[in-house]
Amino acid sequence: MNIKVKFLDIGTEPTVLINDEDALKIGGKDNDRVRVDGKRSATALLNVSDFVEPGEAVLSGNLKDKIKAEDGDVLSIVYASSPESVRSIRRKMDKEKLSREEIYSIVTDILENRLSKIEISAWLTALYINGMDIEEIADFTEAMVDTGDRVEFDRSPVFDFHSMGGVPGNKITPIVVSIAAAAGLMLPKTSSRAISSACGTSDFVETFCDVEMDAATLKKISEETGGVLAWGGAMNLAPVDDLVIKVEHPLGINPRAQMLASILSKKLAIGATHLVVDIPTGSGTKVPTIEVARAYARDFMDLGEKLDIHVECAITYADQPVGNAIGPKLEARECIRILEGEKHPSSVIEKACDLAGIILEMGGFANGSEKAKEILDSGAAMKKFREIVAAQKGNYDIKSSDLVPGEFVADIASLKAGYVHTISNKELVQIAIAAGSPSDKGAGILLMKKKGQRVEKGDVLFQIYGDNKAKVDRARELAAKYKPFDIEGMLLKRIAAPRTR
Amino acid sequence: MNIKVKFLDIGTEPTVLINDEDALKIGGKDNDRVRVDGKRSATALLNVSDFVEPGEAVLSGNLKDKIKAEDGDVLSIVYASSPESVRSIRRKMDKEKLSREEIYSIVTDILENRLSKIEISAWLTALYINGMDIEEIADFTEAMVDTGDRVEFDRSPVFDFHSMGGVPGNKITPIVVSIAAAAGLMLPKTSSRAISSACGTSDFVETFCDVEMDAATLKKISEETGGVLAWGGAMNLAPVDDLVIKVEHPLGINPRAQMLASILSKKLAIGATHLVVDIPTGSGTKVPTIEVARAYARDFMDLGEKLDIHVECAITYADQPVGNAIGPKLEARECIRILEGEKHPSSVIEKACDLAGIILEMGGFANGSEKAKEILDSGAAMKKFREIVAAQKGNYDIKSSDLVPGEFVADIASLKAGYVHTISNKELVQIAIAAGSPSDKGAGILLMKKKGQRVEKGDVLFQIYGDNKAKVDRARELAAKYKPFDIEGMLLKRIAAPRTR
Repeated sequence: MNIKVKFLDIGTEPTVLINDEDALKIGGKDNDRVRVDGKRSATALLNVSDFVEPGEAVLSGNLKDKIKAEDGDVLSIVYASSPESVRSIRRKMDKEKLSREEIYSIVTDILENRLSKIEISAWLTALYINGMDIEEIADFTEAMVDTGDRVEFDRSPVFDFHSMGGVPGNKITPIVVSIAAAAGLMLPKTSSRAISSACGTSDFVETFCDVEMDAATLKKISEETGGVLAWGGAMNLAPVDDLVIKVEHPLGINPRAQMLASILSKKLAIGATHLVVDIPTGSGTKVPTIEVARAYARDFMDLGEKLDIHVECAITYADQPVGNAIGPKLEARECIRILEGEKHPSSVIEKACDLAGIILEMGGFANGSEKAKEILDSGAAMKKFREIVAAQKGNYDIKSSDLVPGEFVADIASLKAGYVHTISNKELVQIAIAAGSPSDKGAGILLMKKKGQRVEKGDVLFQIYGDNKAKVDRARELAAKYKPFDIEGMLLKRIAAPRTR
Repeated sequence: MNIKVKFLDIGTEPTVLINDEDALKIGGKDNDRVRVDGKRSATALLNVSDFVEPGEAVLSGNLKDKIKAEDGDVLSIVYASSPESVRSIRRKMDKEKLSREEIYSIVTDILENRLSKIEISAWLTALYINGMDIEEIADFTEAMVDTGDRVEFDRSPVFDFHSMGGVPGNKITPIVVSIAAAAGLMLPKTSSRAISSACGTSDFVETFCDVEMDAATLKKISEETGGVLAWGGAMNLAPVDDLVIKVEHPLGINPRAQMLASILSKKLAIGATHLVVDIPTGSGTKVPTIEVARAYARDFMDLGEKLDIHVECAITYADQPVGNAIGPKLEARECIRILEGEKHPSSVIEKACDLAGIILEMGGFANGSEKAKEILDSGAAMKKFREIVAAQKGNYDIKSSDLVPGEFVADIASLKAGYVHTISNKELVQIAIAAGSPSDKGAGILLMKKKGQRVEKGDVLFQIYGDNKAKVDRARELAAKYKPFDIEGMLLKRIAAPRTR
């Protein structure tokens, strides 16, 4: 039918809103598709709305450029069938194996906004439940790479590493990159911002240098210094992933196939030939047990073989935060202190050197972990770090003391004496977020005690920092409610012998 | 944060659109939830949009009444967690059995618009893949009943019947209802409009009387005449179903648990004590084989037992359309002709009397099917039909010849001689829809030949009717492309004997 259109600046999926009378004429229902013909044609979702007058169609603003039309134009709007890839999504619901062509169609249709949120949600749910085999995941990964940009380096090999995340305080990235680059290897590291965590690598790196750069800048810095600490989101690497995350996030799921393809696609897009995957394992992380971690490691290695990228995995301890600091400036300060020579917290140093060690061994060095420690202790890593920071428009003479956490502080003290028996990662993350992390750069948590340590009543267990008093107060209330530290005596449970009558 | 709001009349889910800077301040991402505090509070989906200026929030118009606020008000918008039922949806993804409380929460949250399309889609996909056991489905059904209105009759028992659908031309409902009511039973029948079919019962009944009525009117007409032919959608019976269909429809799925709960809930809401379920079985329907039909019958009966409603099932032949007519006026005419005494098409008469017969036997009559035929032949069913039509503001003196199909007709002739070997239900439905059915009341298809009949080259196989020439032309093109009739000689395949060398 021909109908007068009006554009409304709403930033949703491309949508056509019409009255139910007109929907009946078009023969379309809510969430069906229609084709709108302006100077060009586009498909959009049909939204049946009481708000719209009969004889009028309201189009989402994002259609304006696509179809080259103006308010008041009379355009043809007709029913359009859903894309073929919806059939492939249904086939995945029926637990069938998808062909390479089907997987490419799904990925392309997500990227081109041809699949609606409803359909992407069904796709992720089907993936979560029915999964994919390694061949499908390899196709999926390549589809995600091929629908985005690639960085082509003039140097080879290209090293990379990735942490599956889920453990707070994991500020090792700048240390690992600096050690590898100081050893002469090239490690162009892209990182993400926090999705559900308190602080992603990019969230804390951007407290001391730029992380948003285009692919050409990333290439230049990496080739010149051997390292880079970039935010992956600023480049168009495997862009489908960002669209999918928006639907994954509210569902609180991360299907294995999606996760593997997501990680590997970013690495392939950046041309990585050698990859170390850190799999933090412990309660309250994505990977609760060693068995699950081993299964992931197997997946990564099988997938690496299919995709011709050399993959090694490291299962790391994650029952409590890595180091003491959580939150942008707090993590940046702890990280830079270690590069400056500070010997504490040893968990951060050990983890960084172990992971850097695997990379060094891939690069031909013997005794990687010791070599990494040598490079750190010699100051060579700090020198390299300064070069990278300066290349990313930060201060070459950066000092850890430049990073000053928020001015509002709340001390959380122990209500009893005993030993720190468990620390809840998840609860600490929620408290840090309540305090304002990662958007308030000074917000976060500083742990004063860690697992196994002796605590007296009244000892400070951790401090909450923040840039905003109200948020710190709210975080303090949350801490009182959650009690993320579990303090017990040495005797955990007393089992009485059965009494005789 | 506090932010100036503006309302936009968009009829989507309750939505708050803000710029990404402000989203960061709130700590929410696309598709997260926020709470907006006007004079009242409401939760809404967060939509991060480039279109919105920093410091401003655009709210969907449906929030205006809910929160009692006006354009220009400065309101508090804060991050809100997703409803608890999202966790239950995840548990269903993990194939766990849900408790009665969890199922009630999901149903209530869908009704109250607290679950987003993304979440409802994940729920339906999880139901489709992982299913529910009979206990869960019974809880699900009751939750759907309890969240809507109920009709309480002063008469008992209350008979009902339901066809699972999927076969075109199934115009038996007015005949069955009229026979049962003429026998003194009460059968308050609610029907639906077409969802993906060419013509629902309400779509053709409304060509000769009103189908939209409230529950009180339905009760009055049923108690007075013994029957009614109402559109269920006009009443608030199990209203969650209508919300779910909007998400189911684009995915092209109908999970077994959802389908069973949907059917039974409408019947329970109307107080049915006895129910006959028609399960049309054949290729191109929802139920392709007798085995699948038996499984559905078992489900319906088990569920009836749990819900204390006497259920019987009839597996019916559905390899081709029922009778000859498809489309609103065409079906109404064929249906009324039979009530008037016409002996053709016999498939419609036989199916209507068999189903009415089961209802009569439930009501205490012997030899139900023969009794039904007697009532039809005697003219008692037609008399009762006139009463019901008049009660629904139709003409008591209705005649089949009042129903005149569309003025544009296209004859589709056979390209060869032979026998009608198969007729594709699905393709005929698509052709009828292309011709304008069900919104164009005169549109549809009239079959001149049915399965097994001899056909000469040039014989008309079927006619396409329509109110609009362009649509009939389009339908004709589709018919030429699809060729929904398969005409073969008696010899279908010749198998040659192996030659000797």
